[in-house]
Amino acid sequence: MKKGTILSGMRPTGKLHLGNYLTLRNWVKLQEVYSCNFPIVDWHALTTGYEHTDELPVLIREMALDWLAAGVDPKKSTVFVQSQVKQHAELHLILSMVTPLGWLERCPTYKEQLRQMSDREIQTYGFLGYPVLMASDILLYMADTVPVGQDQLPHLELAREMARRFNFLYGDTLVEPDALLNNVPLLPGTDGRKMSKSYGNYIALSDEPDTVAKSISQMVTDPARIRKTDPGHPDICTVYAYYSAFFPEMVGQVRSECEGAQIGCVACKKRLAASMLEMLAPIHERRVKLASDPSVVDEILAEGSARAREKAEATMKKVRAAMHLA
Amino acid sequence: MKKGTILSGMRPTGKLHLGNYLTLRNWVKLQEVYSCNFPIVDWHALTTGYEHTDELPVLIREMALDWLAAGVDPKKSTVFVQSQVKQHAELHLILSMVTPLGWLERCPTYKEQLRQMSDREIQTYGFLGYPVLMASDILLYMADTVPVGQDQLPHLELAREMARRFNFLYGDTLVEPDALLNNVPLLPGTDGRKMSKSYGNYIALSDEPDTVAKSISQMVTDPARIRKTDPGHPDICTVYAYYSAFFPEMVGQVRSECEGAQIGCVACKKRLAASMLEMLAPIHERRVKLASDPSVVDEILAEGSARAREKAEATMKKVRAAMHLA
Repeated sequence: MKKGTILSGMRPTGKLHLGNYLTLRNWVKLQEVYSCNFPIVDWHALTTGYEHTDELPVLIREMALDWLAAGVDPKKSTVFVQSQVKQHAELHLILSMVTPLGWLERCPTYKEQLRQMSDREIQTYGFLGYPVLMASDILLYMADTVPVGQDQLPHLELAREMARRFNFLYGDTLVEPDALLNNVPLLPGTDGRKMSKSYGNYIALSDEPDTVAKSISQMVTDPARIRKTDPGHPDICTVYAYYSAFFPEMVGQVRSECEGAQIGCVACKKRLAASMLEMLAPIHERRVKLASDPSVVDEILAEGSARAREKAEATMKKVRAAMHLA
Repeated sequence: MKKGTILSGMRPTGKLHLGNYLTLRNWVKLQEVYSCNFPIVDWHALTTGYEHTDELPVLIREMALDWLAAGVDPKKSTVFVQSQVKQHAELHLILSMVTPLGWLERCPTYKEQLRQMSDREIQTYGFLGYPVLMASDILLYMADTVPVGQDQLPHLELAREMARRFNFLYGDTLVEPDALLNNVPLLPGTDGRKMSKSYGNYIALSDEPDTVAKSISQMVTDPARIRKTDPGHPDICTVYAYYSAFFPEMVGQVRSECEGAQIGCVACKKRLAASMLEMLAPIHERRVKLASDPSVVDEILAEGSARAREKAEATMKKVRAAMHLA
């Protein structure tokens, strides 16, 4: 018997980077303990990316490959594509009727994102309603647990409020989800800035070993450390941040050697690259195998979506009955 | 070959009054010329009535009985229930992504309605998005013609703009609908005020003959006309408005007899009642017959909804393909 039900999704952004892999690694752990639902939320991608949808099929496929290669197991978890489960749209419509406009307008991330993306025409009805669609994703699977970072707490709180409001209006039907604050570390880009596809400062999970090694060799370290004999400062070193995220068992040694000026940055990076490539090797192997026959991923997503539809329809039957909709 | 495709719906308000019957009579004419889609838009009812949904099944059923009794023919037209065609929710979600918030906020009817219904908590996300749901209804059936009153033109204009925007973004897919301005007269209530269920000043299409006759006998006429020998003013007389709406062939005679003080109001009302009951008799007969076996209406709505789903799915296939959604 599993501990509870989880929902967690990702927008289809194509090939994932090592920062995303930290999230995936968390999912892989969670699926052993919880009944997990992992959607690729392609309809969400439209809230900010509606102008360019040509690449969606490729982005979905590449991301699914990364998920599966990283160990997300479609036998243990329900892995699916949001737009293949039309019930998300139905619950979204219904929740939209009971969601006060002010809840959405006051959502702290809403105005923040509007500011950040002022170059794009995202001031749409759907963008404002993003938390309604997210709530539908969660409530549709009666998820009681949602792994989130601190920054996503306001959205989860809105989903909880929508569940409460629905239950108040129509009787106890939906489950109020709890946050599972994840301790996924925030991985910096190879240049020390925020990791971002637009900065090109990331290592993709699917990068070739040579590329990974090269990216690590070019990582920004403590700029004050000129010579090997200068003591380094691991806390401002990007290389150290990667050790810390992926190889916590090594950080004691790395820190003492760096601060003690016992290892040069070049050697330290080589060691990181070796460990990283060892970690990535089985993932790469699985990915190449999965990618060799496109029908395999297609079938996994189709089967997962069918399973998700069954769960979603079971919830919608309850929702419709509670509202006296046939 | 029919002239074009029409979409026109009504919210499930239960038993209809004679004012609604004027709209139905127009539908009955239109279905001879156009391919017509007539949904009972129950999801729309949630935009303002989400707090009370217990009555929805009865309201839908009673309204369907009135439609069918009035001559809406399920063999000629697609008569269905909106919530039975989930594609409305899917297209609603998709259109929400491409609809600028300003279009909805600036919609002239939006703020007007907010003011009128200030006693109810209708400032919801779904209420703001009402024109998006209405556009989905229309565009889903590739309707090229929408019968509307003058007051609904802003909504139709929004539907046209959404079709244009979708086609601009994703290629020519949706049909831009044209308005068919209907000349359905606005029928006053029996007391001369606006006809309204809350005023109780209406005659229901399904009222018993005695009730109809009594309601007509109590209608407000020209208040300045005290005696039969006083000349009347038909243009401010409620009885005359009903002659004019239902029996235009009689208005010449009625006007001259009233203005010429040749007929008293009591006799004039009796004549109206007689004509009205004659007009309503076959409608009542059909209604009683239809109501006697509940499964008949259920089957008509189920069949109509199945047909509507086929049409809607054909459109959604094109919509998804245009957007590269699987």
